[in-house]
Amino acid sequence: MGINKLINKNYYTYKPVSFSDVKISGSFWGEVLERHQRITIRDCLSKLEKYGRVENFRKAAKKEGDYDGIYFNDSDVYKVLEGVAYTLINNYSPDLEKTADELIEIIATAQMEDGYLNCYFILSKTEERWTDMERHEDYCLGHMIEAAVAYEMATGKKRFLEISERMVENMMSFFSEGKKNWVPGHQEIELALVKLYHATGKIKYLDYSYWLLEQRGHGYGVGKNLWGVEKWGAKYAQDDRPVSEMTDIAGHAVRAMYMYTAMGDILFLRKRTEYMEAMRKLWESVVLRNMYITGGIGSTKENEGFTEDFDLPNDTAYCETCASVGMVYWNHRMNLLTGESRFADVIEREMYNGILSGLSYDGTGFFYVNPLESDGSHHRQEWYDVSCCPTQLARFIPSIGDYVFTSNDEGIWINQYLQCSTDVRTADIGVSVKQETDYPWFGNVRLTVSPDKQEEFSIYLRKPEWCNSILISINGENIESLYTEKGYIVLRRSWESNTVIEITMDMPVEKRAAHPKVRQNLNKVAMQRGPVIYCVEQADNRDDFEKIYISKDTVFAEEFDVSMFGGVMTVTAVNPDGKWKFIPYYRWDNREPGKMKVWIPFR
Amino acid sequence: MGINKLINKNYYTYKPVSFSDVKISGSFWGEVLERHQRITIRDCLSKLEKYGRVENFRKAAKKEGDYDGIYFNDSDVYKVLEGVAYTLINNYSPDLEKTADELIEIIATAQMEDGYLNCYFILSKTEERWTDMERHEDYCLGHMIEAAVAYEMATGKKRFLEISERMVENMMSFFSEGKKNWVPGHQEIELALVKLYHATGKIKYLDYSYWLLEQRGHGYGVGKNLWGVEKWGAKYAQDDRPVSEMTDIAGHAVRAMYMYTAMGDILFLRKRTEYMEAMRKLWESVVLRNMYITGGIGSTKENEGFTEDFDLPNDTAYCETCASVGMVYWNHRMNLLTGESRFADVIEREMYNGILSGLSYDGTGFFYVNPLESDGSHHRQEWYDVSCCPTQLARFIPSIGDYVFTSNDEGIWINQYLQCSTDVRTADIGVSVKQETDYPWFGNVRLTVSPDKQEEFSIYLRKPEWCNSILISINGENIESLYTEKGYIVLRRSWESNTVIEITMDMPVEKRAAHPKVRQNLNKVAMQRGPVIYCVEQADNRDDFEKIYISKDTVFAEEFDVSMFGGVMTVTAVNPDGKWKFIPYYRWDNREPGKMKVWIPFR
Repeated sequence: MGINKLINKNYYTYKPVSFSDVKISGSFWGEVLERHQRITIRDCLSKLEKYGRVENFRKAAKKEGDYDGIYFNDSDVYKVLEGVAYTLINNYSPDLEKTADELIEIIATAQMEDGYLNCYFILSKTEERWTDMERHEDYCLGHMIEAAVAYEMATGKKRFLEISERMVENMMSFFSEGKKNWVPGHQEIELALVKLYHATGKIKYLDYSYWLLEQRGHGYGVGKNLWGVEKWGAKYAQDDRPVSEMTDIAGHAVRAMYMYTAMGDILFLRKRTEYMEAMRKLWESVVLRNMYITGGIGSTKENEGFTEDFDLPNDTAYCETCASVGMVYWNHRMNLLTGESRFADVIEREMYNGILSGLSYDGTGFFYVNPLESDGSHHRQEWYDVSCCPTQLARFIPSIGDYVFTSNDEGIWINQYLQCSTDVRTADIGVSVKQETDYPWFGNVRLTVSPDKQEEFSIYLRKPEWCNSILISINGENIESLYTEKGYIVLRRSWESNTVIEITMDMPVEKRAAHPKVRQNLNKVAMQRGPVIYCVEQADNRDDFEKIYISKDTVFAEEFDVSMFGGVMTVTAVNPDGKWKFIPYYRWDNREPGKMKVWIPFR
Repeated sequence: MGINKLINKNYYTYKPVSFSDVKISGSFWGEVLERHQRITIRDCLSKLEKYGRVENFRKAAKKEGDYDGIYFNDSDVYKVLEGVAYTLINNYSPDLEKTADELIEIIATAQMEDGYLNCYFILSKTEERWTDMERHEDYCLGHMIEAAVAYEMATGKKRFLEISERMVENMMSFFSEGKKNWVPGHQEIELALVKLYHATGKIKYLDYSYWLLEQRGHGYGVGKNLWGVEKWGAKYAQDDRPVSEMTDIAGHAVRAMYMYTAMGDILFLRKRTEYMEAMRKLWESVVLRNMYITGGIGSTKENEGFTEDFDLPNDTAYCETCASVGMVYWNHRMNLLTGESRFADVIEREMYNGILSGLSYDGTGFFYVNPLESDGSHHRQEWYDVSCCPTQLARFIPSIGDYVFTSNDEGIWINQYLQCSTDVRTADIGVSVKQETDYPWFGNVRLTVSPDKQEEFSIYLRKPEWCNSILISINGENIESLYTEKGYIVLRRSWESNTVIEITMDMPVEKRAAHPKVRQNLNKVAMQRGPVIYCVEQADNRDDFEKIYISKDTVFAEEFDVSMFGGVMTVTAVNPDGKWKFIPYYRWDNREPGKMKVWIPFR
């Protein structure tokens, strides 16, 4: 269920394995998931009430009272509900289901007779419904669909799905082939409609998603005065040209990511192969020229998006948590379409850095913006007026299992290393796969492969982009020469039950350089160990924070510190004139406030 | 001149640097070029006479006598003339030009009044002109064009170019938009027409190339009975579907390579972005599933092409020399289009293995077929009835400099490491670049960069696919952290004159495994050192050839043997029960006849 369950398994060349089929445990992601389920999802539910998000629906039902907050606040409710659905799939909880059922009833009462449902317009501008492409009616609808599809998957209950379909019908009655044009001001509904197609089997939703994508770039949108701001033209919302002709990332980051994700979904179903070439060009534009080492994207608060190639300021970086999640959605599609490991590399980068930094250690604080340097003034908040990032984490974390495995008739791909077990189909048989590992702190993975019956197929092990040395043994016997295909080591044999593959990756601390065109990082390095990017915080380096540097003679001491955040690997850089402690970037601003930086002077 | 000179420099994202601007010297390619110019090209010219290739033109001029040999023998004359042109560009020689002028006069006398020129049809089947797509009239014309364009570039003389244009006009008068359909039975003319467009500026030739490509796959071709052989259907000549819909390699290898090359040329000019996705899929099909470790392609003599994925027999391999050259042409376009190093990796693999094996050490013997294992019966010949491969080498070797550098406003790419010097434009200035190296025997390269004036730009150094460890220093100072983009290490700075970049690549002997689905190589390894694939020959291992094996305990001793072929790096595998000498694969069958193999049992 979740994203992968919805994708037709014959759709991509490489078939996804849903998080619902992946049981995650162990000390890293097991703990993140446990904290999400015990604290974060419930915390977000309570904040929906505390900050008036649910109350808007109650008011809308009665058509009384003032709408509270920004016009797309409905989406917060939907996204948390989506997170609840995924949480129920991972670990059923009757009280969580009851809370969700009650919320859905409140939502239902707000729906108008013609199917229309958007609290902002119902309460303050009923007459202006569907007149303003900038006001996120379709964006909220997209999240409603995603939540409704998820909830039906989790519980089998169709009520929410029907509510969302009625609102889609309402929209389609005005804007569709042969009727009026419509360009979603914030892409999201396109990818949601693909999910709705998969959930209902109704091809019209897929067609509608495609139609909406193809609406862009023909001047049907708001044009050069989006929200009355001249500089936010059509480019801001990726409406300056047809999607298949796009080559360079521009504008608002989250909009772009959601759109590319939908393009990936649509690609094969509609045989629009030029979508693929556009996406490859866009991918290079994003990943090679506009991505921070943390996986963060968006260089400025100005447009919550992109400026120019290689402009990557560290202190004023935007790096919205939502955009990093969007990067995972998009790169997941790219990996499914191509089977190339570099897309899974990006997903890993986001998982351990750009995304996880958005959530506090206690599970109740959030970053919307994830800079790579701070003067001590940037801190986590329990909620935001625009709270897309907390609610994004609420739904993303429980579906992290979506990104671990893929398969097809040839074999099984191991895309991410984390402790878990699953059952996958390949070569017409079922195969149980178990990962045991303390990744990302240690580079050892013990993979146990147990097919239902002995059969020949391949196991593909991703060789991480950061990994220079990897050893593989099967049942204790070292493999001398490894064959690598598209970034995956290919192990093929007739597998017996309980075959044990031991993977040993060297995981030294490494100094990473930025692209030399990034002027902000000239003569600086960032510390990386395995997939984890490190930073220095004032909390560990109180007196001489400004003095911190790295040289070619710096020696790095690793220590697994069990007293810190339940156990993290820390790195101490030892120089003749000072010792400085580095912690994983994703764990910064979880102690006393202070300065932080990722990029360190190199001299 | 050559391929690169003809390509509009604004055409590809990465601009080619023509071999005519690259002065190659040094002990490896310098020697290969010297031997080509001194021996091979003249040897081929004399064989054109000896084997009746020129005589056919004399007969055709008089319309008297019997045509000698196979119906596409004209192409041998054209290909050698193309090689002569490139040789003249590299090192002018008056007697070579005189010989070429005389040959062109003979060709001219054979041309009919209406421009038609094909000795086979003129002499034996004048009435059957342009009636049989299988009879290579357009294939021969393609080579005529390539030679004519090259000769005009080399000498400024337009006579040959005019001859070829008249024959193109003759073809177009029967088959073109609005007239009759025509599917070239052996692709070649498509890429030649692009060259003709660049040489003449006449857009009609480009349009015609595109038209011919788009003719394929609509049933206009010969269909399922090519040459009356049922199994050689439309697929054999890549005519089973439109070119933009192709996903898997099939049929005759050289035909496919020439066609993909033309598709690369056409791609941007006609904005057919779906060509790109087709080419990426085809590239994976060829390189990941149907290529030998030597870069050879074509698994069987049967169709001179492909069978099924991962079917790569070593003894009955086809691996036509021409197909390896075609791989270079195609991968060169892919590199120019994408800037990705993996395409230059394939070019390197072909340069040092699949192609060079086709030419004997003395420069007068050739392989058409390049197997990876021999029982002692496979030997070089001085010529063939179908002599496409000798003449292919005659034109390919002198243009090897086409593959060394690319550039654009951002900087200069070093795609191949070999001793040479060039002048390149980047960032609006001229830059002289010099490479000093004993590659491929040693992994040290000294690169001297001298811009006309100090300017900021990037130098991109390809990190070879085989290279696990690379060190870089600039003016003696080690670079601590390297940034890699699309497989190239990016060095960016404001460059002063005479800046020296030292590149040090570790070049150990390595055991390489095949994809585990290649049943022929199960439990075998191949030895590789740098880009060079090694083999064992009976000449070095007389008594115990069948006993040769490699184990995890095998120790490898390297010795640069100056007594062998003017100096090659040899490798001795030392086992407890035997020592076996390995030589570079490309040098096999240059001594006493005997057995040979690349893939060695591993135990």
